[in-house]
Amino acid sequence: MTIRTVVWNEFIHERENPVVKEIYPDGIHGTIAKFLSAGRDFEVSTATLDEPEHGLPQARLDATDVLVWWGHKAHGQVSDEVADRVVTRVHEGMGLIVLHSGHFAKVFKRLMGTPCSLRWREAGERERLWAVNRSHAIVQGVSPAIELPNAEMYGEPFLVPEPMETVFISWFEGGEEIRSGLTYQRGAGKIFYFRPGHETYPIYHNADIQTVIRNAVRWAYNPVAAWKDVAAAPNVPADKAPEKLEVKGARLHKAGEAGYR
Amino acid sequence: MTIRTVVWNEFIHERENPVVKEIYPDGIHGTIAKFLSAGRDFEVSTATLDEPEHGLPQARLDATDVLVWWGHKAHGQVSDEVADRVVTRVHEGMGLIVLHSGHFAKVFKRLMGTPCSLRWREAGERERLWAVNRSHAIVQGVSPAIELPNAEMYGEPFLVPEPMETVFISWFEGGEEIRSGLTYQRGAGKIFYFRPGHETYPIYHNADIQTVIRNAVRWAYNPVAAWKDVAAAPNVPADKAPEKLEVKGARLHKAGEAGYR
Amino acid sequence: MTIRTVVWNEFIHERENPVVKEIYPDGIHGTIAKFLSAGRDFEVSTATLDEPEHGLPQARLDATDVLVWWGHKAHGQVSDEVADRVVTRVHEGMGLIVLHSGHFAKVFKRLMGTPCSLRWREAGERERLWAVNRSHAIVQGVSPAIELPNAEMYGEPFLVPEPMETVFISWFEGGEEIRSGLTYQRGAGKIFYFRPGHETYPIYHNADIQTVIRNAVRWAYNPVAAWKDVAAAPNVPADKAPEKLEVKGARLHKAGEAGYR
Amino acid sequence: MTIRTVVWNEFIHERENPVVKEIYPDGIHGTIAKFLSAGRDFEVSTATLDEPEHGLPQARLDATDVLVWWGHKAHGQVSDEVADRVVTRVHEGMGLIVLHSGHFAKVFKRLMGTPCSLRWREAGERERLWAVNRSHAIVQGVSPAIELPNAEMYGEPFLVPEPMETVFISWFEGGEEIRSGLTYQRGAGKIFYFRPGHETYPIYHNADIQTVIRNAVRWAYNPVAAWKDVAAAPNVPADKAPEKLEVKGARLHKAGEAGYR
Repeated sequence: MTIRTVVWNEFIHERENPVVKEIYPDGIHGTIAKFLSAGRDFEVSTATLDEPEHGLPQARLDATDVLVWWGHKAHGQVSDEVADRVVTRVHEGMGLIVLHSGHFAKVFKRLMGTPCSLRWREAGERERLWAVNRSHAIVQGVSPAIELPNAEMYGEPFLVPEPMETVFISWFEGGEEIRSGLTYQRGAGKIFYFRPGHETYPIYHNADIQTVIRNAVRWAYNPVAAWKDVAAAPNVPADKAPEKLEVKGARLHKAGEAGYR
Repeated sequence: MTIRTVVWNEFIHERENPVVKEIYPDGIHGTIAKFLSAGRDFEVSTATLDEPEHGLPQARLDATDVLVWWGHKAHGQVSDEVADRVVTRVHEGMGLIVLHSGHFAKVFKRLMGTPCSLRWREAGERERLWAVNRSHAIVQGVSPAIELPNAEMYGEPFLVPEPMETVFISWFEGGEEIRSGLTYQRGAGKIFYFRPGHETYPIYHNADIQTVIRNAVRWAYNPVAAWKDVAAAPNVPADKAPEKLEVKGARLHKAGEAGYR
Repeated sequence: MTIRTVVWNEFIHERENPVVKEIYPDGIHGTIAKFLSAGRDFEVSTATLDEPEHGLPQARLDATDVLVWWGHKAHGQVSDEVADRVVTRVHEGMGLIVLHSGHFAKVFKRLMGTPCSLRWREAGERERLWAVNRSHAIVQGVSPAIELPNAEMYGEPFLVPEPMETVFISWFEGGEEIRSGLTYQRGAGKIFYFRPGHETYPIYHNADIQTVIRNAVRWAYNPVAAWKDVAAAPNVPADKAPEKLEVKGARLHKAGEAGYR
Repeated sequence: MTIRTVVWNEFIHERENPVVKEIYPDGIHGTIAKFLSAGRDFEVSTATLDEPEHGLPQARLDATDVLVWWGHKAHGQVSDEVADRVVTRVHEGMGLIVLHSGHFAKVFKRLMGTPCSLRWREAGERERLWAVNRSHAIVQGVSPAIELPNAEMYGEPFLVPEPMETVFISWFEGGEEIRSGLTYQRGAGKIFYFRPGHETYPIYHNADIQTVIRNAVRWAYNPVAAWKDVAAAPNVPADKAPEKLEVKGARLHKAGEAGYR
């Protein structure tokens, strides 16, 4: 089996900011795509904000198993249409890995239904990510604690729904902590939020971080065929009811009429 | 303490459909407001779609502890602005009770982040709601199973996130079942989805259903002051870090600059 | 990869009761082992109550990836020692599939921490299991609703913790319903409770039920090496702390002393 | 309403260890009972390990709304009978607050069904507890982060089930973190695990910690009458089924016979 993976990036800081450009000369998406491509089970491509439809036309999303999302400065430039398209594909079964500042991405906020807000500080401080369940598929191949010498701090409260699983919690040198690896199921789709990734530090060059993202893509992959009518609300007429049924009382809808939505 | 409760209704079927009009001459909101008003701890008022800002201007929502929502035919006529305002108030701590066809209301879909779809049939069949936890605050004062002689069927799959608590599951004469009482926490707000309520049957005149809604409003009430900046992502500068911190590495933001969103 | 699967059965009714004997001449474990063996990725064996250590000595459990559990009449005859051994192996990462009347098995009650009680009736009535998430790995290959012409009724309240995922809910002809497919994570182990299986009906000869159990064993399989010290509470001495630490204040334990438990 | 609260303590270190004795001359239970008694809605008493039945005979537990549990050195001395009695009362609706080293108490481990293990260090380091939901009833009246100058470190992985709500996460000076305030529902009972409390530091004299425990007792209080038969599995005979039912097929049980357990 091959996991058709698309790495999406707004791709702005890497072009505008010399520090970020030096760390990610091919863009963050380029770096992530490269290390994912090393896994034989991945078929990886990239997409960016400035492409038509942000590189995510319907046909391409339909052929995507897992989408990796990186955005920071330009969340507002992602069109509502493309954001909704991504959300719908997650409901149908596409996996979604949301990285770092993607906590404020339209796609993530719409899937969570919460503000997704948090506290932050850019001081290059030390971060340590502790695995909560050492036998979870996402943490295999990394040590019990992943240490990042320089990271942007994100602190609780992190306004997301209680997750299906808390996979990582981060400790910060400056005194804060945050839940930094969280899984969710939304419709047929699996979602993993993974905190690390500030663009002024070489986070995605870290071998442990790469391993986690690779594991997460595999975890989020749902081999089942897309649930295309996941949002439909079909009528089950009385004569098609599983049990024999005698219709009683008044009705709002005529036979065969679609429901309201 | 007094729970300031607003009962919202799109209020269309009760004016257009003679059957519904006869059951709810004062509108569904009128009936719900009336039985809630019998509880001394409630201060109840109503709001409808056709009022300016759908009867939900910011100042009124700010003075609302729990909002009860009934909509069916006109979900699309609720403005995005008012829907977002309600969602934000839930995040700040306002309770929300979503009834029946409100599963497709903008406010509910945005808070859930899922399609909220289900199967349905209008055949006046029997429904029986079973309490999953008989000691839950929401099921007090009703029998282990609430029986409705005539109901619209809603069937699984019901595309909502796994709830905080499954409170009721419904059995239908025609052979289906559905999770029909579900609790959620989103930000500071508590949400209860309660399935019964099809407008061609006198569901909200049923004493058990009234008891559940009354219990649910009390359950959803959060006496804590509104969390007004729940969506803010404040910067914690290095010199305000809980621990003494020496700034290292490159930064994206200048001191005092706001974060992206 | 091969999933080393052990099917455990108390194996009493099939020897004592002629009706059950006719349906399961090789025992329920025999039937389950047989259809599992058809999957190339399974290496299946069986164990029964009357074997030494109930067929589950430590070495065998250590070499078991997923355990399928069927018990009904003799829960009390399972020794506490073996029950605890199974529980510990689940914590270490062994998958566990608990079938039908196993809701009252020692191993299940100890893993849930709740009474696991429910209502029941033996009337050969119709059961219909509805899938809550049609894209879940466990429901692949079966229709949206599995229909069993004759089943024992189990009804809510079912006293288990809120699950990680509600996979199936059952409808019964007599008017009750119950959550009938539930997933849990306990330590490194995945657990699936699956309701159908009353021994006086040929439930485990049903192709859909067989498919679900086969899927469930695959779902519960954790390929990660056993977490052998999952219950240990190791001391991290101050000089081994991730951050440099100056010891302050009084201590209860001397250096190197084990913690209490 | 009055919350009948019992504070249980093994009461050993305060008698054997001079440091602990000086901090808690009346025992940890004495200190906790004293500050709880300041709340008008509490009726507080204490119980200790060395009393007959550890001070928890059935009649007393039956008259207890919320039990606060502190144990450390003598978990093994708590009789299985009393531990099971407490567990059953929680299932029936009694609230339970488990403090600090109580993570290894029989009552907690049996309710969780997991090892409840963690990492630890006794170095008097700084701990900071961050509230995850600032509007939660349990965190009212305390600052966003509670700072303890000296604490025993507990670190993840903390082997408990995913909670209903993560209320606090702790940061430690030495580089670890842990989920330190967790809520659970088990049967009709609410459980709150609260980490702070090492006996060589004056943790329970801290005003914020006292506020949290007071809030937690109120949160865990279930005013509903005890669910006495929560563990019963009553038969619903065919002629008492909610729907008219014709008995089919073979049966294991004779009419009126009790189920197996």
